[in-house]
Amino acid sequence: MPPAHPFDDDKLKEECGIFGVVGVADAANFVALGLHALQHRGQEAGGIVVHDSDAGFNSARRFGYVRDNFTSHKVMETLPGPIGIGHVRYSTAGTKGATAIRDVQPFFGEFAMGGAAIAHNGNITNADSLRKELIERGSIFQSSSDSECIIHLMARSMQRNIPDRMEDALRRVEGAFSVVAMTRTKLIGVRDPLGVRPLVLGKLGDGYALSSETCALDIVGAEFVREIKPGEMVVITEKGVESHFPFRPAKSRFCIFEHVYFSRPDSILGGRSVYETRENIGRELAKENPVEADLVCPVPDSGTPAAIGYSLESGIPYAMGIIRNQYMGRTFIEPTEQIRNMGVRLKLNVNRALIRGKRVILVDDSVVRGTTSRKIKEMILDAGAAEVHFRIASPPTAWPCFYGVDTPQREKLLAATMSEDEMRDHLGVDSLKFISLDGLYRAVGEAKGRDPSAPAYCDACFSGEYPVEPADMLDKGFKMKTAAE
Amino acid sequence: MPPAHPFDDDKLKEECGIFGVVGVADAANFVALGLHALQHRGQEAGGIVVHDSDAGFNSARRFGYVRDNFTSHKVMETLPGPIGIGHVRYSTAGTKGATAIRDVQPFFGEFAMGGAAIAHNGNITNADSLRKELIERGSIFQSSSDSECIIHLMARSMQRNIPDRMEDALRRVEGAFSVVAMTRTKLIGVRDPLGVRPLVLGKLGDGYALSSETCALDIVGAEFVREIKPGEMVVITEKGVESHFPFRPAKSRFCIFEHVYFSRPDSILGGRSVYETRENIGRELAKENPVEADLVCPVPDSGTPAAIGYSLESGIPYAMGIIRNQYMGRTFIEPTEQIRNMGVRLKLNVNRALIRGKRVILVDDSVVRGTTSRKIKEMILDAGAAEVHFRIASPPTAWPCFYGVDTPQREKLLAATMSEDEMRDHLGVDSLKFISLDGLYRAVGEAKGRDPSAPAYCDACFSGEYPVEPADMLDKGFKMKTAAE
Amino acid sequence: MPPAHPFDDDKLKEECGIFGVVGVADAANFVALGLHALQHRGQEAGGIVVHDSDAGFNSARRFGYVRDNFTSHKVMETLPGPIGIGHVRYSTAGTKGATAIRDVQPFFGEFAMGGAAIAHNGNITNADSLRKELIERGSIFQSSSDSECIIHLMARSMQRNIPDRMEDALRRVEGAFSVVAMTRTKLIGVRDPLGVRPLVLGKLGDGYALSSETCALDIVGAEFVREIKPGEMVVITEKGVESHFPFRPAKSRFCIFEHVYFSRPDSILGGRSVYETRENIGRELAKENPVEADLVCPVPDSGTPAAIGYSLESGIPYAMGIIRNQYMGRTFIEPTEQIRNMGVRLKLNVNRALIRGKRVILVDDSVVRGTTSRKIKEMILDAGAAEVHFRIASPPTAWPCFYGVDTPQREKLLAATMSEDEMRDHLGVDSLKFISLDGLYRAVGEAKGRDPSAPAYCDACFSGEYPVEPADMLDKGFKMKTAAE
Amino acid sequence: MPPAHPFDDDKLKEECGIFGVVGVADAANFVALGLHALQHRGQEAGGIVVHDSDAGFNSARRFGYVRDNFTSHKVMETLPGPIGIGHVRYSTAGTKGATAIRDVQPFFGEFAMGGAAIAHNGNITNADSLRKELIERGSIFQSSSDSECIIHLMARSMQRNIPDRMEDALRRVEGAFSVVAMTRTKLIGVRDPLGVRPLVLGKLGDGYALSSETCALDIVGAEFVREIKPGEMVVITEKGVESHFPFRPAKSRFCIFEHVYFSRPDSILGGRSVYETRENIGRELAKENPVEADLVCPVPDSGTPAAIGYSLESGIPYAMGIIRNQYMGRTFIEPTEQIRNMGVRLKLNVNRALIRGKRVILVDDSVVRGTTSRKIKEMILDAGAAEVHFRIASPPTAWPCFYGVDTPQREKLLAATMSEDEMRDHLGVDSLKFISLDGLYRAVGEAKGRDPSAPAYCDACFSGEYPVEPADMLDKGFKMKTAAE
Repeated sequence: MPPAHPFDDDKLKEECGIFGVVGVADAANFVALGLHALQHRGQEAGGIVVHDSDAGFNSARRFGYVRDNFTSHKVMETLPGPIGIGHVRYSTAGTKGATAIRDVQPFFGEFAMGGAAIAHNGNITNADSLRKELIERGSIFQSSSDSECIIHLMARSMQRNIPDRMEDALRRVEGAFSVVAMTRTKLIGVRDPLGVRPLVLGKLGDGYALSSETCALDIVGAEFVREIKPGEMVVITEKGVESHFPFRPAKSRFCIFEHVYFSRPDSILGGRSVYETRENIGRELAKENPVEADLVCPVPDSGTPAAIGYSLESGIPYAMGIIRNQYMGRTFIEPTEQIRNMGVRLKLNVNRALIRGKRVILVDDSVVRGTTSRKIKEMILDAGAAEVHFRIASPPTAWPCFYGVDTPQREKLLAATMSEDEMRDHLGVDSLKFISLDGLYRAVGEAKGRDPSAPAYCDACFSGEYPVEPADMLDKGFKMKTAAE
Repeated sequence: MPPAHPFDDDKLKEECGIFGVVGVADAANFVALGLHALQHRGQEAGGIVVHDSDAGFNSARRFGYVRDNFTSHKVMETLPGPIGIGHVRYSTAGTKGATAIRDVQPFFGEFAMGGAAIAHNGNITNADSLRKELIERGSIFQSSSDSECIIHLMARSMQRNIPDRMEDALRRVEGAFSVVAMTRTKLIGVRDPLGVRPLVLGKLGDGYALSSETCALDIVGAEFVREIKPGEMVVITEKGVESHFPFRPAKSRFCIFEHVYFSRPDSILGGRSVYETRENIGRELAKENPVEADLVCPVPDSGTPAAIGYSLESGIPYAMGIIRNQYMGRTFIEPTEQIRNMGVRLKLNVNRALIRGKRVILVDDSVVRGTTSRKIKEMILDAGAAEVHFRIASPPTAWPCFYGVDTPQREKLLAATMSEDEMRDHLGVDSLKFISLDGLYRAVGEAKGRDPSAPAYCDACFSGEYPVEPADMLDKGFKMKTAAE
Repeated sequence: MPPAHPFDDDKLKEECGIFGVVGVADAANFVALGLHALQHRGQEAGGIVVHDSDAGFNSARRFGYVRDNFTSHKVMETLPGPIGIGHVRYSTAGTKGATAIRDVQPFFGEFAMGGAAIAHNGNITNADSLRKELIERGSIFQSSSDSECIIHLMARSMQRNIPDRMEDALRRVEGAFSVVAMTRTKLIGVRDPLGVRPLVLGKLGDGYALSSETCALDIVGAEFVREIKPGEMVVITEKGVESHFPFRPAKSRFCIFEHVYFSRPDSILGGRSVYETRENIGRELAKENPVEADLVCPVPDSGTPAAIGYSLESGIPYAMGIIRNQYMGRTFIEPTEQIRNMGVRLKLNVNRALIRGKRVILVDDSVVRGTTSRKIKEMILDAGAAEVHFRIASPPTAWPCFYGVDTPQREKLLAATMSEDEMRDHLGVDSLKFISLDGLYRAVGEAKGRDPSAPAYCDACFSGEYPVEPADMLDKGFKMKTAAE
Repeated sequence: MPPAHPFDDDKLKEECGIFGVVGVADAANFVALGLHALQHRGQEAGGIVVHDSDAGFNSARRFGYVRDNFTSHKVMETLPGPIGIGHVRYSTAGTKGATAIRDVQPFFGEFAMGGAAIAHNGNITNADSLRKELIERGSIFQSSSDSECIIHLMARSMQRNIPDRMEDALRRVEGAFSVVAMTRTKLIGVRDPLGVRPLVLGKLGDGYALSSETCALDIVGAEFVREIKPGEMVVITEKGVESHFPFRPAKSRFCIFEHVYFSRPDSILGGRSVYETRENIGRELAKENPVEADLVCPVPDSGTPAAIGYSLESGIPYAMGIIRNQYMGRTFIEPTEQIRNMGVRLKLNVNRALIRGKRVILVDDSVVRGTTSRKIKEMILDAGAAEVHFRIASPPTAWPCFYGVDTPQREKLLAATMSEDEMRDHLGVDSLKFISLDGLYRAVGEAKGRDPSAPAYCDACFSGEYPVEPADMLDKGFKMKTAAE
């Protein structure tokens, strides 16, 4: 399974992508395509559940890429019917080993009034206590996934239909979640009250689609209708879309990192292409942190739009100083005569003839552990660059995310333990500058920057201000930001 | 096996990459890395042969990517020794079916004085007659590959050592070839007298490496020493490099399309990075064919450097109007409710929010059949572009290549049957312009453009002037350019 | 997956084999060996669960043979610990499709006081109503297996330890069952009050083993201690074996077909080798149904011991008139010029030179549908036999089994629709005779034959007298034997 | 790949089976079935070559069983046409490693007048010198197989058609061989002048078949016509069979071990079923070596017919004292608490309840190294047998075979280093007796036993009298039997 980004191991990782359709022939084929377009949100495994009036519910769950698992007739023929949902996911700690296929969503439950399946993007912050309570009452968990709580809560609800049971269940759940679910005939979409994770609605022929991002609507030829609203539940049948707001109203806090890195550049967020927002981020970064140089080079591929923006704003020529290997993937066996930085060479090569003697601005989307930034700097200097200036398209990542993003523990985050100057010295570059939090807010369209009293986004990874209390993590000893910090 | 380029099926394809090392521990691991860096030159199959004084010659040949076949300890442990060569290849017509693994190089022959293996990049233009003669004399061919002639000619040579037998054999061979070969102790590299295909020498620790391109020297940490000269044979042992010139001298005619498309942008050709040359091509293209527009967008990924050059020269902003799916690969099953241009959607998505209402210049490296150019144009117009202008970083491709490149038959080449205006109308774009042949020569460093009496490159695919007579093809009815054309 | 018997598709099939060990290093390796020896009881899939104080519970479930799934270090290393249980199974109707791996036992549940796994041989005759009740109360079933009811009943029990919860659960269950279960430290074995399915106890080094048959004790080098008694529950720790009798006492009704066909000939049942019992059956058959002939030939391999017994009793020479292909397995593609009875030829070949002109007695274990008996008769006659006499080592199979054996629907059983003479004519043989039910009882050691008022065995498949009411089947319309029949 | 016989590692092994058909639709499907029936003659790999007037020659070669490789439509569709040949083989020393698929027959050569393929059963005793000569003349060998010499000799022959080239080639070859070959339209069969290895002719619909044994004719529904004669070449087209005798006439020396072990019991050799011959061997053995005992038990499965014969002659009851596991195959991981003789337990189990206290005669087909005989004796004694008497259905195997049978080096043959009494003590049994060479000749139909001046069979493995000088082996230091021995 080759990763999508050369330095996946030193990136924050979105943990899930979700997709569902109703009212079309061969729903599974559409779901497979949609998940393929969302593969960047979860590369480890994927699953599809469908329903057909003759064949009932069917599902397939596999490790690996959508393109490797859901493209054969042999598999897809086992997934008939006009309604289906799917899920792609990253692995997270604690799910290694022989039983992990059980952790692959969608989860399915047979209730007294019929079956339902759900796929979940996000993280339930009170999952540990919910799970404990459910086991004591006789529920048998099949996975180590927090998301399984939802289906057990639904099984035990006294409501008479599945959407009502789902409301019941989700009202007990805390945290950030976007959910796509299905019964035999209904496609259901929900976002948590803060709307932390994305979910969009599309019109697909005579039917409908729900997706984490609009890029997956494009691949199936669906028309983008609108974003599901924070706190909204939509219940979709072949006849149309019903909208409910079952939760207590709250101010929206969408994840700002979706703009920076998670979403695909061709998706639309807030009415604008993510690519343009990232170009804007590059422009803001150039305004805030100018420097004299000969070339602006992206760290491929995630730094590319911001590097283009930086070049456009600064007038310094944009160039591909680092070339990514199109065929990266496996770990090769290192020869006895060891090769310096072999891991990086497998992924990238510096354009030596271009870089030699130049002052180079390197634009990257973020610094997490800093390990790959150091290696890239070394390659650039080995190739004979005169100066190296890092410009980062996000503020320092100093706090872990508890809302569905795989982040290292806080002490592993470079920005949690060092000042900007210390980071610059640690990386050994001529300068290192991050965009400011206000600059980032301006780039995403908040002309006045961040309102500290009511921020428009969840920016906990930068600010340490968590809009939902991470209850399970506090139980495990996590320390929130203090007044002094 | 996902392809490297989204439109591999509508590109000219380099058919091979070759790599060899001597004088290092674990030669096979270096060869695997080198082949990985050359994967863009041949994605269908790869093979490695090594020699060890205890284990003798060993080989492995596999369909698929280097990263999937030559990264496991199980395989690599079967390939011990300090000397080895490898080959990656595309398939060509006529080799489909169950026996095709026999066509995967390197080829190996056991001679009276010991074994030898060879890997060949290029095409032997008199292979059919050589093969016929050899079979009549009792040679048994194991493959459908023309390259196998070389090893049979070597087997029948009366010379007493293998390099001499190889000279004997190659003097009988016509066409374009770069060869990497090995005996138990010697690594041998040869280029044909015109030097049509590339081959470079590197210093790797205490040993040496030969490679199609310098990017493969970079990945193994080898220092680029020089290009092998046209008509040169180098015989390399752990002690050093001997140089011979066994062929009649001739004027160099290096393949100009290596600059346009085949070579990797981070390789060095003629002392300059291929990336810079392509940026130059874009600049020349902008000078020759300016147009008013809002955005310059590459057709990813091969059009990117020329698009950057076009933007720099023209001052029109560069933007990623088309986003490539990082996970492309398999063919998905199309739903019954068919999706318009599904094949293209799997590979690319238009950045709709960016393109809408804009006048867009699309820069691509070449037009072969024109099928994908049409589809891309449709996607761009569907997304609401106001105008679409194609700019092509090479002259019209009007003639097939017979020197180791997979080209459609002449009548399938769009430029063989249409004028530039006819092509524009066929593609349905607002304008279509190609760089001139002189412009291309200037971009690769020939300040005066092309010298028609003695061109510095092989440009037969554009000019129809073939520097070596394609004997076998003429036998099969191919018509050369007439004086009238 | 080649079948064990050439005519598995026309046999009654035991649906499961179970095995467990405690108090040994590498429990999983012993379990794998034990399951391998029990493979004839279930060839479709197998699973192993183990517990280790460091690694917790681990499991692996796979389709296919034990030897193909549980022999690699890669798999077995994921199964550490000193206690483990395993299960092999046949598929049954209704479990086809993508989710069926979920039906592979052992089943596992995490309870408030810790985890438990169970493996079940038999059939729960009130499973449908139990399942309905459990779903209404909020249990989520993961499989289509009736056995899963047990673990949900355990999850909902109010008892404080797992053996007590298991008693609770099994008291609600009707039908035939032998169960092997485990907690972190305890190995548990149970047989239903009638003791329909087998279960034996062995001493393995310092630990213990439970197994469906003694042949699996032999393979791991365990000493056969005794059979678990009908209605007994044993709770085994490293310290020893505790015995309980939680159910209301009942008269034993062991499955008589285990003697005829299911159990391996080297297993011990009732103190005697199954092989000898089958030889006895052959002797009884010869006494009851003598005929003049030249040769006694078994239908391989299941008819062999009875054929030997028939030969010994009758004095007619025993010979291998039908040779079984050792490599049978897949379905070959039939040529256009069709081959008569190709399916049978793949499995068997008649020893033509031996059979020609002879009067042949063919001994088989049972007649189910009769389809293969006809084909074998044809092959024997094609080879030139003078006469064919069928002798069957069991009474006519006229009723389906509902206690863990895969039987065709009643109307597919030849003996349910025809008299013995009609069957003879249908099969087209010179004579056809079955052993009498009394003869069978004598052969298994009941000197007086069957006591109609209190039969010592379950013989429902022959007699239609079901010792446990098949509640779910009656709900589905099955008709019990009437007084008139 | 599970072996056919439980103790393949301690048996002489036939190295090949060959099969061919002409004049039928879908030749490959018939060849696959024929090879399946010959699988016991070669379990490691198999290959099929066919010819079709449209598709030309096609081939597939695979490691593993016929049933696993040649049963899918995907593979068989690549093998069209009305003529085809096939081969199954054992591996032999020296062919391990990555290139060994090249050693899998049939071999194919493209000659000036068209292609031909050959499949060879036997061994060329002057292969080393032929190979050396061919390489010096410029032939390139693709395999390590001696059989490849034949195709190179054919390629260099000056004859104008392929059957004549084949005669030319085979006249240069020494040793034992049966060959099946094909051109585009002709099926060719040849046996060496002594007729050491078998080959039979069958009529298959409107076409013909050639096969190593008659059992493969049975499976495809072909009628057995006759054996190919020693020294005969048949050239078969759709029109009929031409017979030639290209070699100098010689007295037939058919391999006597085919009767003892290699051939399948349902094949016909010399007009009688192999099963009956083996039963005869058992009877002779009983006459020559009677002993008082309670049971005659075969070592399964190869000892079975002789054990039945021994029982019939002696009147001592026949019984299955040793039960073979139907699912044997892989090597299981041995637990830390090691299991005594685990290797044997995986394959066999003693019928303990039957054997206890009995005097047992064990009948086996041969003793090679003696390693498994010892283990079986131990298992029988562990089970409580009172006495163990070994009776062997062949004379002591004291000499290696050089005619296409895989034999250990002479010093590894138990009978090469010990007398019968020493072997008895070494094995630790109460008695050990072999059939005499005369007895064996009588059993196969030579009423007067062996004629020492002109033996009717090749019995070199027992007598050390080699009918063809093993030239290559003498070069490697093998010592022939001296007058004194």
